[in-house]
Amino acid sequence: MRSNDDDNQARLGPFVRIGTIRTPFDTAQGTPIQGGLSGKEEGRVVIDPVYREGLSDLDGFSHLILIYAFHRIEKAKLKVIPYLDRKERGVFATRSPCRPNPIGMTIVQLLEINEGIMRVSGVDMLDETPLLDIKPSIPAFDYHTAVRCGWFEPHLKRIEEQQIVPLADSRFHD
Amino acid sequence: MRSNDDDNQARLGPFVRIGTIRTPFDTAQGTPIQGGLSGKEEGRVVIDPVYREGLSDLDGFSHLILIYAFHRIEKAKLKVIPYLDRKERGVFATRSPCRPNPIGMTIVQLLEINEGIMRVSGVDMLDETPLLDIKPSIPAFDYHTAVRCGWFEPHLKRIEEQQIVPLADSRFHD
Repeated sequence: MRSNDDDNQARLGPFVRIGTIRTPFDTAQGTPIQGGLSGKEEGRVVIDPVYREGLSDLDGFSHLILIYAFHRIEKAKLKVIPYLDRKERGVFATRSPCRPNPIGMTIVQLLEINEGIMRVSGVDMLDETPLLDIKPSIPAFDYHTAVRCGWFEPHLKRIEEQQIVPLADSRFHD
Repeated sequence: MRSNDDDNQARLGPFVRIGTIRTPFDTAQGTPIQGGLSGKEEGRVVIDPVYREGLSDLDGFSHLILIYAFHRIEKAKLKVIPYLDRKERGVFATRSPCRPNPIGMTIVQLLEINEGIMRVSGVDMLDETPLLDIKPSIPAFDYHTAVRCGWFEPHLKRIEEQQIVPLADSRFHD
């Protein structure tokens, strides 16, 4: 599924690991499907010493956007059956990790930052996940009203009504 | 600023261009600093034909997370002076494009999707920006309450009170 345009490719990486996300999750089984749904699982983000200067002023922000690599995904798919669903969906209409570019994004709460190590809550990544970027979460930029969520809406109602915290099982085999 | 761990590097790309974001903005001058602040600028997202199968079911979602490459950035910085601010900040506490991994993220509104071409509003990227990923925006996953925004908060008040739509000038020279 790679383009033949080598010139374009050259501009898109390779990207560097700026740090590592440490979580309690060694396998997909038992991992929250989205950190924002439970928000309770704690993890640590350990920034490589050469990038720590870039963390200054971050302690004023309560929530961070973590952008990372789905490092255990070996094969991309264009159609996946998402966790909680039974129908194949286009991968770009899901949060499945089996994407053409295995890039994940989770918004976590920053609990503490100390010498390049952050304690955060709301993690949903596997342990040892390579971190690509941190951005401050700014509702004025990122939050919208009247958001429609397509195929996910009936599942969302089910989650809200039953107060389930969904955990992955087959998520990494989609 | 690259790590010496070649094994880690190898897992992080190169990533592929899955499409191209077309916008009215050829230069940083005059580009909205964040699409979410104005939300009105329209653009098109043209998906490479080989990835179009992955777009199915996306039309039920009103807002999309676009993840893309800041393709015109040549040099990363760990400290930047953000637009609207006068003090140097750690780059990870800003949305500056001059990041160790030049990855951008904007949430746009999906207006129309037709044969792999999406019409969207709320664009803040330069024209011809390489697209890396599309994810559905799902408030239950991504929106939080009691969000604190550190150094940005006084600027936000200024924007709200004066109803300014901030445009970039020196953003790409940070």
